[in-house]
Amino acid sequence: MKLASFEVETPVGPVQRIGVVDDEWLVDVTASYGAVLADRGERRPAEVAAVTAPSEMLAFLHHGDKAFEAAREAVEFTDKTESSVGPNGARLRYRRDEVELLSPLPRPNSIRDFMVIEEHVRNSLDEPPDAWYEMPVYYKGNPDTVVRPGADVEWPAYSDKLDYELEIAAIIGKRGRDIPAERAEEYIAGYTIFNDFSARDIQLREMEAQLGPAKGKDFANGLGPVLVTPDEIDVENLTVSARINGEIWSDGSLGEMYHSFADIVEHVSHAEPLYPGDVLGSGTVGNGCGLELDRWIEPGDEIELEAEGIGVLRHRVVDST
Amino acid sequence: MKLASFEVETPVGPVQRIGVVDDEWLVDVTASYGAVLADRGERRPAEVAAVTAPSEMLAFLHHGDKAFEAAREAVEFTDKTESSVGPNGARLRYRRDEVELLSPLPRPNSIRDFMVIEEHVRNSLDEPPDAWYEMPVYYKGNPDTVVRPGADVEWPAYSDKLDYELEIAAIIGKRGRDIPAERAEEYIAGYTIFNDFSARDIQLREMEAQLGPAKGKDFANGLGPVLVTPDEIDVENLTVSARINGEIWSDGSLGEMYHSFADIVEHVSHAEPLYPGDVLGSGTVGNGCGLELDRWIEPGDEIELEAEGIGVLRHRVVDST
Repeated sequence: MKLASFEVETPVGPVQRIGVVDDEWLVDVTASYGAVLADRGERRPAEVAAVTAPSEMLAFLHHGDKAFEAAREAVEFTDKTESSVGPNGARLRYRRDEVELLSPLPRPNSIRDFMVIEEHVRNSLDEPPDAWYEMPVYYKGNPDTVVRPGADVEWPAYSDKLDYELEIAAIIGKRGRDIPAERAEEYIAGYTIFNDFSARDIQLREMEAQLGPAKGKDFANGLGPVLVTPDEIDVENLTVSARINGEIWSDGSLGEMYHSFADIVEHVSHAEPLYPGDVLGSGTVGNGCGLELDRWIEPGDEIELEAEGIGVLRHRVVDST
Repeated sequence: MKLASFEVETPVGPVQRIGVVDDEWLVDVTASYGAVLADRGERRPAEVAAVTAPSEMLAFLHHGDKAFEAAREAVEFTDKTESSVGPNGARLRYRRDEVELLSPLPRPNSIRDFMVIEEHVRNSLDEPPDAWYEMPVYYKGNPDTVVRPGADVEWPAYSDKLDYELEIAAIIGKRGRDIPAERAEEYIAGYTIFNDFSARDIQLREMEAQLGPAKGKDFANGLGPVLVTPDEIDVENLTVSARINGEIWSDGSLGEMYHSFADIVEHVSHAEPLYPGDVLGSGTVGNGCGLELDRWIEPGDEIELEAEGIGVLRHRVVDST
């Protein structure tokens, strides 16, 4: 199943919704699950649907398996019904070109971004230190600067070297602590594409001071366009690519990960809880950014990251001045 | 004004409240502001008070100056009234020993922790790199692991070298972006004590890989016991100390900060929004942790951080096995 968050314009302001996506349509999960419940004779179908299959992704993830099960039932029902509306006259579907997608997770609970692909480390920094092999190392990103798919990203005035990073992110769907790797998959709700925008000049200066990147990363995070559930994706062999203004600059595979997502979940959850809506980035694939290629994007460039089975995450970088 | 978050036990479960603190009492801000409004003839005083002076700190901070003004009025009124309850029979005050304090900000929007005191850098790491003088460097902490004042902190099983860090944190009270240093104080709602618990062995290995500390920091954050508004504190000359089992190990002053909180706000907010509930840690004062002193805490030890005008933040570290 592919889930998107999207915004519906209404006379009382925009409303956030979750849709199950196919090529042409978004099935509104909350409205359609309301229709399922009405069909079963539930007395307050819209209200119960809003609790079981909430229309905001963080609440939806908190509801866990029951929310995903409701979404599956909603799609099955909506595929069969001839009606276009559910309880309270809420629309069951939208054409993809009618609405604007948000990031599937517009405000993650947290972002942790790893660096687990050896070629990227060798190309960007140097010989990986011993610690790199011992554990998946990471920095924490800024969950308040997620940009929607298709949005312009402002070039931060303090940087002359803006860059993209081609990554995949796992999204946590269940609270847990001290999770063994072999049970990690229970905790992953799905995957999406992650463009870990980077301002290389300030990032490298920050890393000299050993506290990790901050201003070099925190101005923007691209996450999307959809969340794909684990049953629909072979993440360990996922092929990914990056195009700048239509030209392929990067391509690679998550098969290059030295530490798997399962190992990452085990490591991070030692003595520390993971929560629904936590984002875990794979780190950049080999040659998955301009720094490695010594090729640099310019204001106005369009960046498209593509992953088999997820889609294309597109942004344009624009001069903020 | 000193604000605390605290929990009231009720037959339907614990309820979070905010109190204005003096030596003996906590004035319940929401209940007391309800009493102010009732006295003025407001028709739905409890409901309006819950919006204007909410009982959870993140919502309270979002309401900004109006919430702080309501809290001041609430205290003035409650000092004069003979009644012990407000609208709906809600209690106006609690004795400090009746209730359990939470961290004033139990779940910050974010934690950024800086390293701006040169002596700490020289003692812990080495000669500061040029970047350290150019800008306030920082890592991002884990807002999901804030522990309440007085709580036990579990010693993470993966570390043999647990440490405290003696710091002060500024708490952001107003959304802003590209904030000049000279206007930074408008954005700071108050200050509290920050114990940036650190697992030194894994932290130093993580820092070798240049992405900054993560497991070395993220298992626990001590923040409290109260938030003190800027008018009551001379943060630039604040004296602080740390006691282990009653013995003073560290003392210092925030006068040692090479980059001020105003400079920090300016730097962080470049091309990136700050939000109410963002926490900005000063970093450790000189000799403000065991690493610098080569003295190490043990399971069972009690750690007390004290700051003039804020109070004492006390935790015990306990073996988790």
